[in-house]
Amino acid sequence: MNAIDIINKTKLSIPLSHEEIVWLVEGYTNGEIPDHQMSAWLMAVRLNGITDEETLALTYAMRDSGGIMQLDIPYTVDKHSTGGVGDKTSLIIGPIVAACGVCMSKMSGRGLGHTGGTIDKLESIPGLRTDLSVEEFTEILHKNGFAIMSQSGEICPADKKIYALRNATGTVDSIPLICASIMSKKLATNADCLLLDVKYGTGAFMKTKEEAEKLAAIMERIGRSAGKQCRAVVTDMNEPLGCNVGNSLEVREALEVLRGETRGELYNVCIMLASELLALAGKGTVSECAELAAEAISSGKALEVMREMIKLQGGNPDVCDDLSLLPMPKFRYTIKAVCDMEITGFNCEEIGQTALMLGAGRTSLNGRIDATAGIIMQCRIGESLCAGDPIMTLCSTVCSDFSEAAIRALNAVSYIRHTQPKNDK
Amino acid sequence: MNAIDIINKTKLSIPLSHEEIVWLVEGYTNGEIPDHQMSAWLMAVRLNGITDEETLALTYAMRDSGGIMQLDIPYTVDKHSTGGVGDKTSLIIGPIVAACGVCMSKMSGRGLGHTGGTIDKLESIPGLRTDLSVEEFTEILHKNGFAIMSQSGEICPADKKIYALRNATGTVDSIPLICASIMSKKLATNADCLLLDVKYGTGAFMKTKEEAEKLAAIMERIGRSAGKQCRAVVTDMNEPLGCNVGNSLEVREALEVLRGETRGELYNVCIMLASELLALAGKGTVSECAELAAEAISSGKALEVMREMIKLQGGNPDVCDDLSLLPMPKFRYTIKAVCDMEITGFNCEEIGQTALMLGAGRTSLNGRIDATAGIIMQCRIGESLCAGDPIMTLCSTVCSDFSEAAIRALNAVSYIRHTQPKNDK
Repeated sequence: MNAIDIINKTKLSIPLSHEEIVWLVEGYTNGEIPDHQMSAWLMAVRLNGITDEETLALTYAMRDSGGIMQLDIPYTVDKHSTGGVGDKTSLIIGPIVAACGVCMSKMSGRGLGHTGGTIDKLESIPGLRTDLSVEEFTEILHKNGFAIMSQSGEICPADKKIYALRNATGTVDSIPLICASIMSKKLATNADCLLLDVKYGTGAFMKTKEEAEKLAAIMERIGRSAGKQCRAVVTDMNEPLGCNVGNSLEVREALEVLRGETRGELYNVCIMLASELLALAGKGTVSECAELAAEAISSGKALEVMREMIKLQGGNPDVCDDLSLLPMPKFRYTIKAVCDMEITGFNCEEIGQTALMLGAGRTSLNGRIDATAGIIMQCRIGESLCAGDPIMTLCSTVCSDFSEAAIRALNAVSYIRHTQPKNDK
Repeated sequence: MNAIDIINKTKLSIPLSHEEIVWLVEGYTNGEIPDHQMSAWLMAVRLNGITDEETLALTYAMRDSGGIMQLDIPYTVDKHSTGGVGDKTSLIIGPIVAACGVCMSKMSGRGLGHTGGTIDKLESIPGLRTDLSVEEFTEILHKNGFAIMSQSGEICPADKKIYALRNATGTVDSIPLICASIMSKKLATNADCLLLDVKYGTGAFMKTKEEAEKLAAIMERIGRSAGKQCRAVVTDMNEPLGCNVGNSLEVREALEVLRGETRGELYNVCIMLASELLALAGKGTVSECAELAAEAISSGKALEVMREMIKLQGGNPDVCDDLSLLPMPKFRYTIKAVCDMEITGFNCEEIGQTALMLGAGRTSLNGRIDATAGIIMQCRIGESLCAGDPIMTLCSTVCSDFSEAAIRALNAVSYIRHTQPKNDK
């Protein structure tokens, strides 16, 4: 086999054999196939697509590039989101399902670009560690039914190398490549049951619902082929999920939901996802499970799981009772409506990028982040505002000059000016 | 500007600006843009195409990556073939047009892969040098009106680097990239008048006449945009041009044509190309020029130019009179018809590959070649053979075991078996 023949086949839309895909992934991971050949192949995949069979083979080959986790736990579930802005659902769903008696073993990555990472969010809790050993992780899961650890370097080294190359060569936005990247890691972390939350909209990789459905279908199929209980749901990411974007801000909002203080879209999405996961794990029908999930919150049991998890992972559990113990931003700036207006939409990715500018994310894998930085959204799509009403508040500790960020944020808001006196307010 | 934005635009079929293309070519040539980004862009070009405007900008940017030749000669013509098997037309057309008073300054490359290179062919003449300085080249042109030098490293360094990358990444077969590669070099060598011979068929890069016509049209347009007298013609490469394939074998056949001993397809193509070039250079109508070209051969003037060129470039001019002074192969093997048959076609690229196996070409840029190696074709498409008639003779000095090459060569021949007694022989 040689790399040029393989590139040529994909270039001409001739499907590769299972063996060819394994050879390619192994050769690239061990350095025998150079970056420039892999990137030509990735672009051919991006532009021509590959078959579902090839996507499956690619996923398996990437999974097998490293170790497969074996936890000493009879049954675990996992949940993955394809990435959005303000998506803190893992911090809410994990405690809910654990409170309902289902063990959630979550491995997460750090954020890169405009979407945040669960690990970064959790690490804004004072003292909390995510660099757990597999033994520590298993012990916490046994005690509490919920733990989150940062992804080990031994899991899917092929994905790590291929993802970095895709990021540098404009080949991130390919359904088969996104699918193989996510599913190889999920199959290597090896939970028995897997819920996939595929986001679409201005803040997601998939801009349309149709693309998201395509990705959801192939991921679900691959999960099931690999013997997992697997379901993929498609959810909206045309505005940030909940009000807060940014690490410590999102932990605060997640705790507010777990404390039963906040309802709305974020609460609804979490109950929906948790009930899908519980149903998949055999706890009843989806509607029965929705009731279980709501009870986990109203009874305070889910908050208790969260408190225990924070404690067991070395963090200060008192944050659950006193939100002011979370890091607070030193500087704030509120963007206000300059006229009477109705909000018609957000460019959600641009809101994520603004949070990044404020210090909430990293532009390179080793970049530092400001745990307090982010944005508090103060209106939603369809809402009418009067001149002077707040649209959103920018927060940061590393950045005190908000002029550039404010312009970027305001450009991410679409609205129509009210010229008539409003009767509806 | 950044490389990822540029890759993304071409990936989404959004045309690049002139400035973006210059930035890309300069950045890649000076090493600021890495191979893996360039190869992703090249694959996007291969699969999505680029506009004619972009192809023009790419050609100019590659031309300007190195020096542009300035010969102290009032008017010169150049001729380029897109590469075929057994294509020795430059060695015949150059002497013809020079004999008709038009100066042909030809810069050539070495062969790579299944197509031969004019420089390799010429260097099979004992003593002949092609590594001329610009001063030597100019002096010979002044004296004789025809000289061939090997391409200087200072011409189009961008093309050199991009071509090597295309070769390694399955991105050779792209009309805009082929066009930019050829035309950047031709514009940098800077003749006033340019004839392009675009080959199509089983032995050419362009497999169909339609593709060849597309390439011819865009090359002609670019040559004219750059202020050159330029014409592109499309010619057949479904069987080797003439009988001989291989360096010294092709020089022998070219000399036979110049000596007036060989007619047929090769002679006809050379007269056609020479007359197009002479007409372009203002020597009359194409049919008048065809007469001039035929006279140049029948009068012996073209052979005289060749003899002088060989002498001025340090070779032994006596080869023109005594073909046995050319290097002769040590081993020969004739493939014979195993039954009565009619030849229906050749896979001409496979014939080139067989010649390569025998030692006639190189598989890497620094590989050594066997000047005597090659193939003598002894039948043509449409010809009927009796069992035992020769199909072709394999020649080599470095290789004495012909078994593998013979199988490959025979597989390149399509024929139908005659089952009825033939009346036509």
